[in-house]
Amino acid sequence: MGVVIRNIQRVEAPIAGAFAERRIGVATAHEAQGRIGLMASYMRPIYRGAHVAGAAITVSVPPGDNWMIHVAAEQCSAGDVLVVAPTSPSDNGYFGELLARSLLERDVRGLIIDAGVRDIRDLTEIQFPVWSKCVSAQGTVKETLGDVNTPIICAGALVQPGDLILADDDGVCVVPRARAASVLNASIAREEKEARTRERLQAGELGLDIYDMRSKLAAKGLRYLDQAE
Amino acid sequence: MGVVIRNIQRVEAPIAGAFAERRIGVATAHEAQGRIGLMASYMRPIYRGAHVAGAAITVSVPPGDNWMIHVAAEQCSAGDVLVVAPTSPSDNGYFGELLARSLLERDVRGLIIDAGVRDIRDLTEIQFPVWSKCVSAQGTVKETLGDVNTPIICAGALVQPGDLILADDDGVCVVPRARAASVLNASIAREEKEARTRERLQAGELGLDIYDMRSKLAAKGLRYLDQAE
Amino acid sequence: MGVVIRNIQRVEAPIAGAFAERRIGVATAHEAQGRIGLMASYMRPIYRGAHVAGAAITVSVPPGDNWMIHVAAEQCSAGDVLVVAPTSPSDNGYFGELLARSLLERDVRGLIIDAGVRDIRDLTEIQFPVWSKCVSAQGTVKETLGDVNTPIICAGALVQPGDLILADDDGVCVVPRARAASVLNASIAREEKEARTRERLQAGELGLDIYDMRSKLAAKGLRYLDQAE
Amino acid sequence: MGVVIRNIQRVEAPIAGAFAERRIGVATAHEAQGRIGLMASYMRPIYRGAHVAGAAITVSVPPGDNWMIHVAAEQCSAGDVLVVAPTSPSDNGYFGELLARSLLERDVRGLIIDAGVRDIRDLTEIQFPVWSKCVSAQGTVKETLGDVNTPIICAGALVQPGDLILADDDGVCVVPRARAASVLNASIAREEKEARTRERLQAGELGLDIYDMRSKLAAKGLRYLDQAE
Amino acid sequence: MGVVIRNIQRVEAPIAGAFAERRIGVATAHEAQGRIGLMASYMRPIYRGAHVAGAAITVSVPPGDNWMIHVAAEQCSAGDVLVVAPTSPSDNGYFGELLARSLLERDVRGLIIDAGVRDIRDLTEIQFPVWSKCVSAQGTVKETLGDVNTPIICAGALVQPGDLILADDDGVCVVPRARAASVLNASIAREEKEARTRERLQAGELGLDIYDMRSKLAAKGLRYLDQAE
Amino acid sequence: MGVVIRNIQRVEAPIAGAFAERRIGVATAHEAQGRIGLMASYMRPIYRGAHVAGAAITVSVPPGDNWMIHVAAEQCSAGDVLVVAPTSPSDNGYFGELLARSLLERDVRGLIIDAGVRDIRDLTEIQFPVWSKCVSAQGTVKETLGDVNTPIICAGALVQPGDLILADDDGVCVVPRARAASVLNASIAREEKEARTRERLQAGELGLDIYDMRSKLAAKGLRYLDQAE
Repeated sequence: MGVVIRNIQRVEAPIAGAFAERRIGVATAHEAQGRIGLMASYMRPIYRGAHVAGAAITVSVPPGDNWMIHVAAEQCSAGDVLVVAPTSPSDNGYFGELLARSLLERDVRGLIIDAGVRDIRDLTEIQFPVWSKCVSAQGTVKETLGDVNTPIICAGALVQPGDLILADDDGVCVVPRARAASVLNASIAREEKEARTRERLQAGELGLDIYDMRSKLAAKGLRYLDQAE
Repeated sequence: MGVVIRNIQRVEAPIAGAFAERRIGVATAHEAQGRIGLMASYMRPIYRGAHVAGAAITVSVPPGDNWMIHVAAEQCSAGDVLVVAPTSPSDNGYFGELLARSLLERDVRGLIIDAGVRDIRDLTEIQFPVWSKCVSAQGTVKETLGDVNTPIICAGALVQPGDLILADDDGVCVVPRARAASVLNASIAREEKEARTRERLQAGELGLDIYDMRSKLAAKGLRYLDQAE
Repeated sequence: MGVVIRNIQRVEAPIAGAFAERRIGVATAHEAQGRIGLMASYMRPIYRGAHVAGAAITVSVPPGDNWMIHVAAEQCSAGDVLVVAPTSPSDNGYFGELLARSLLERDVRGLIIDAGVRDIRDLTEIQFPVWSKCVSAQGTVKETLGDVNTPIICAGALVQPGDLILADDDGVCVVPRARAASVLNASIAREEKEARTRERLQAGELGLDIYDMRSKLAAKGLRYLDQAE
Repeated sequence: MGVVIRNIQRVEAPIAGAFAERRIGVATAHEAQGRIGLMASYMRPIYRGAHVAGAAITVSVPPGDNWMIHVAAEQCSAGDVLVVAPTSPSDNGYFGELLARSLLERDVRGLIIDAGVRDIRDLTEIQFPVWSKCVSAQGTVKETLGDVNTPIICAGALVQPGDLILADDDGVCVVPRARAASVLNASIAREEKEARTRERLQAGELGLDIYDMRSKLAAKGLRYLDQAE
Repeated sequence: MGVVIRNIQRVEAPIAGAFAERRIGVATAHEAQGRIGLMASYMRPIYRGAHVAGAAITVSVPPGDNWMIHVAAEQCSAGDVLVVAPTSPSDNGYFGELLARSLLERDVRGLIIDAGVRDIRDLTEIQFPVWSKCVSAQGTVKETLGDVNTPIICAGALVQPGDLILADDDGVCVVPRARAASVLNASIAREEKEARTRERLQAGELGLDIYDMRSKLAAKGLRYLDQAE
Repeated sequence: MGVVIRNIQRVEAPIAGAFAERRIGVATAHEAQGRIGLMASYMRPIYRGAHVAGAAITVSVPPGDNWMIHVAAEQCSAGDVLVVAPTSPSDNGYFGELLARSLLERDVRGLIIDAGVRDIRDLTEIQFPVWSKCVSAQGTVKETLGDVNTPIICAGALVQPGDLILADDDGVCVVPRARAASVLNASIAREEKEARTRERLQAGELGLDIYDMRSKLAAKGLRYLDQAE
């Protein structure tokens, strides 16, 4: 404990930028990378409609102690997403509007925290998006060290510093840095395929036929019966 | 397992329609039918303000497997509400925008699911209302059969296919098909009575007097004391 | 059980008024009074953006029984906040639009309830703010007495009748009546100090420097390393 | 509400008796009847090692009110199992040693309750088994009616009066009365088959071979790799 | 914060002793004092069969910081029960075998902690009883002050230093110091009454008759029906 | 998905053996390795008193599908511990007595599973220890592939195949393979130090003095006051 790793390698900015511009959804990217890296479903945005894609600056914090978030702020640069996980479960409000001002100054995209956040009215007003376990006004102390930019587990997902963080109304997904380009391409391909499926569904075709499910269902033994009177 | 019941008897369309047009609330109908049939309070709408009333198409699905939702889609017709319950607890995102397009094509009113849902931004945009246990981008497989239109227990409530499903910002209630007409009438009567009570309350009368509670409270032994200094 | 205390001493109206006019936040007041009196983070507002500051009228209710809320309504006057706690955990919908009408008539500021609430669409429309554990259409009975204006524990916080209740999007905080004036002053001082910090943060200074953390971090042994290739 | 159904048809005593004598496990019976009827996994026994099989006497109770359990006691006869579900979630201690004495007098097999229980030390001493959601000393009132021997949903499972209730260290399962005989036979067959499998496993054979899984796994695309150095 | 109150007034030793010798149960005392003061049902003993009655030494601790428990140990004397509550939810293991040795040296009766405990195998071996929210090996730091012997809220119950703490397999109850003698007497009376009821129940009488419920049930409208074929 | 890594490098058997023989506790090892690698506190043993130390065979399984556990069994050898995590939360009973027989045949030490287990009575009888999220009789299907011996996150902890798994009544801890020897030494050193502290505590010394806390507490501002009358 007590280590800050500087000058980490980040997911390439144009790749993160492409995720952001195309608003690649968390569900899409999660599927595209083989259904790994999703954070737990209790991670919810403090307001609806935000979408972020950026490089993870990771922070491991003690329960009820946000000192290291101040340390981490200095390590953030434009396009980063701060990802904070306590070493044991906490619902303290580690983060509020003042820290958000500081991060906005550095063009940080948002915060992912497996704990509480506060000042959510202000954060909404200044449009600093946060995905958190809960909302809590409970403050923290500044007494114990943690780590910045070491691997952490946040809400059940492993996050390496520099990984791509993708977050929207559906939740938060981690894309390993080395795979970001291929996941981007797979996501785009997936969206294009879905666009074609969408057209067919809107034309009244059923998924049963589009995905050719009927014979497989029959092979499994699906039976159709009419309701008895 | 592996049964699809077709051509079920549904709550009569004019009755469901009357619930919808009058926007009979879940709280009202639940009271009107003797306080039964309410789903657990963790079932929350993905967006506020929706109100649906329609006939239940029930789906029993394995955990993490949404195959039967595709099967169920074909059994849906105008005015139906899809009701999905996994056979063991799951927070997977069983349902997203593409399936919603398909159901909208068939004029389905909405989805009730004791599990997760995804693409909630899109679902909100196209105004397909969903009440779910959670939001999750986690996808599902298509490997194991379940049942369509057999009785299920969804979020603690028994749902028979064809039952009336009523859902609004307060939650989800099931009204057995055979009782729907009488519950409609009782709900209307209840609303009329509440309208009169509302007037009296807004005129400054107290519930204590309107409902004639004072003597009963006294009989139970209620004592009024002034605060000691 | 079965006691109603009348004519309680309330936090002075001008003090509560000052909290309201200045929109002193829950996080601010909680810090200002030494981080005590915060309710559990599961207490959430039914709609966003409300802020209330008023004197607590406390109600201890049995599980699933809202009779005493009717009794309490009579004890409420302008500027009060109703605070309701069941004697054992309950998610019943104890309170709805009709009771809200009655309280609005008496100029009550809002409701804090460690249980469920219903009619949230109507409550939002008439702008009667509620902070609750959950939303539920499940009604209650009127059979068993409780107490009005005795000390209660609501969502983990001790509430004495007449205490100042402060609630906003971050949660709910209790300020003991006798301390309200000093907490108000401390809150204002805190906000002024935060305003100065905000300016410095927006000018690009870091919390590390503003709060003079660097030497303390070094003394604790914080090490800065560059990422290995 | 307020109905007691007398003289219900119960699962035949010899069938329930056979489940008890052979100590058919909940897991076995649940599989044998097609994986339905299992109560939620939060239903835990107050002590380990009990096994009960008997006919359900169902009780629907208000939250925090155990009056109807006294009513139900009179409806119990030898070999019955009391099954209690509140109409909304409650962790009150509805049941204690005195009620257990009364039920033991009538040769009742045990209690299944989707709420709390108390006096667990005494209940253990007199060997009256209980499966419950929690343990709580919190008492209840006797003010509001419920129902005895109407269908209820207990911990997510539908229970009809007279159904077979099976409970052991793994949980609680409901077997519909009409299916109890066939489930008994299927359970016995299953146990015999498992005995043969057990022998083969103890002889060192793998499930992969006993269940002939290798070709199916290969067909699904399972790949075996050696760990890279 | 940062206050230790010394030489508190404790519940009188003979009264606490009488609770212990007679093994007055938590359920009994809770009833006897009017159903107040019970801690939440998630507070469970680390082993079964313990019963403690003693004077509360209260400790308010930061999340993940057990420094003040060491401070509190010095304030404990024979017959005390340590009661620990974190200022925000924590499942850290604040307490283990070494601290227990220290408290046993001082003849402390046990620990009540609204957080985690560890070394439960050793604690069981040396028979130091603990009631806790959970078991966790996660250690704590020693950085931030808290308070000893100030009023705290522990698992939803208000505890004043010196209050009587009663704990057994059913949970934990707080009896205010000033009321301990009268609660003792009421508990004894209650037990005597229950002994008479027990005899009647064991003789086959029903609660319906012993408590004279039949007419009240009829007045409420209870109906007895025979099951339809 | 669908990969089985064979012939993994395991923590050296003598090191794992030393942890087992000395019964190094989870709390001790967790401290000794710098408080990392602990699984969530909801992971509980099915019976008390077991202690295991062995090499992790990791299994990533779909929700409600235990097929890969059969695949993993073949990869297990003497001294291994099976560690199973579903790709989304599940409380299904993935594992029972038959699989345990098979693993016992191969001298596997136990099972760690972030899901449900069944047949706990039999597992206790044959002394096959399991740490799990819950107990459930709910069975699983065998339809979808997962992975064996790839890195997984189990109950919030990262597990690499071959890592040392340590589990006792306090929970489950993961020690990375490469660090196992040094953690063993640090654990032994810690135990020796604790033995000396234990002696001093049993001689009546206080932690305050043994750990030299008084001056640090005073420096932080701790105040001692006598209780006011």
